[in-house]
Amino acid sequence: MTTEDLRTERTTVRRMAERAAYDAATVYAILDEAYLCHVGVIVDDLPIVIPTLHARIGDDLILHGSPASRMLRTAKTQEISVTVTLVDGFVLARSALHHSMNYRSVMVVGRPEVVPDHEKAATLDALVEQLTPGRIPYLRPMTDKEARGTTVLRLPLTEASAKIRTGPPGDEPEDYELPIWAGVVPVTESYGAPETDPAMRMDVEVPDHVTSFRSSAP
Amino acid sequence: MTTEDLRTERTTVRRMAERAAYDAATVYAILDEAYLCHVGVIVDDLPIVIPTLHARIGDDLILHGSPASRMLRTAKTQEISVTVTLVDGFVLARSALHHSMNYRSVMVVGRPEVVPDHEKAATLDALVEQLTPGRIPYLRPMTDKEARGTTVLRLPLTEASAKIRTGPPGDEPEDYELPIWAGVVPVTESYGAPETDPAMRMDVEVPDHVTSFRSSAP
Repeated sequence: MTTEDLRTERTTVRRMAERAAYDAATVYAILDEAYLCHVGVIVDDLPIVIPTLHARIGDDLILHGSPASRMLRTAKTQEISVTVTLVDGFVLARSALHHSMNYRSVMVVGRPEVVPDHEKAATLDALVEQLTPGRIPYLRPMTDKEARGTTVLRLPLTEASAKIRTGPPGDEPEDYELPIWAGVVPVTESYGAPETDPAMRMDVEVPDHVTSFRSSAP
Repeated sequence: MTTEDLRTERTTVRRMAERAAYDAATVYAILDEAYLCHVGVIVDDLPIVIPTLHARIGDDLILHGSPASRMLRTAKTQEISVTVTLVDGFVLARSALHHSMNYRSVMVVGRPEVVPDHEKAATLDALVEQLTPGRIPYLRPMTDKEARGTTVLRLPLTEASAKIRTGPPGDEPEDYELPIWAGVVPVTESYGAPETDPAMRMDVEVPDHVTSFRSSAP
């Protein structure tokens, strides 16, 4: 993945909105598999990039945080972008310059809307449930105070583009004659054994949704 | 990791430059362990966020790509930010709102310099070698033409800040009485069995630096 592969010009982003259902399905699948996104907002003329969690709910991307967050306060007054990147492998080529990554990436562009108070609890529950399937039915319900104390933003998925690289390296024609091993080293993410909070005050069985963590996630 | 955890205001970023050696060591370790970064640049008034590969070489962050890349052409005329995020675990709390992530993140802010032609090949070799240790001595040397055809940027690490969360959830005091399992599910990245390029024209042993891929990476 060089910056060449990933240059994304605004005209391209704009054009994506007109594309076919295939692209929307691809974009949604990438957004759903990822949980981490990087949000770009302009603060004092600087394009800052903030990592945060996201979930896709219907045709919206949901972001949340403290009402005191300057990123969130700024984001709701401007057009922002949100980028999600899934790494699938290191591409080892026969020459240094053709080294690359296999990856799936999505950039969403838009002006976020503030989710109103009466929808916040349901939206936050949906976000937590999508990130950690099975968790919400297991917890105590969110209080009104908790929901009120959180800012929730909804970014409509009307302008988004996917960028994907798969497969072996693409080398210079003459380099295929060299006795150099080339190929792909796959990258995967895995979940380790759950670590129980040392502050637990009672014996509680580790629930199924934790032992099989995110196995039912998209 | 909520946006609350990660709000990063420009004043904070500015202040980081004055911090102690401990912080520089922490920032450098995070930049070195990561290979993927997200670059924020302003294009047509929009803060776009582009994933790309990076390497730290000395006190600089190295980015590269095609001279045709609008992101790179734009980046070298403005102040940008580069964010790196390593995910360490899902933090499962007793209430929905205290769910979080364990992570280590760095944001670097600055104005990139263009690496001059005569330094490009060595800089690109160092980048590839840091990302895939052992690879460069195994490859044919980069040609002058290849080096000239690549834009290489150097972002001085003078303004950077780290943000780190570790440990178990922090719940509301009364929730510790609830019979709810709480703790952390660790997240790790792993490398699968190397997949040989189907276009290989001869039998070549998989070299050690591939079978033990990135085991000597930072």
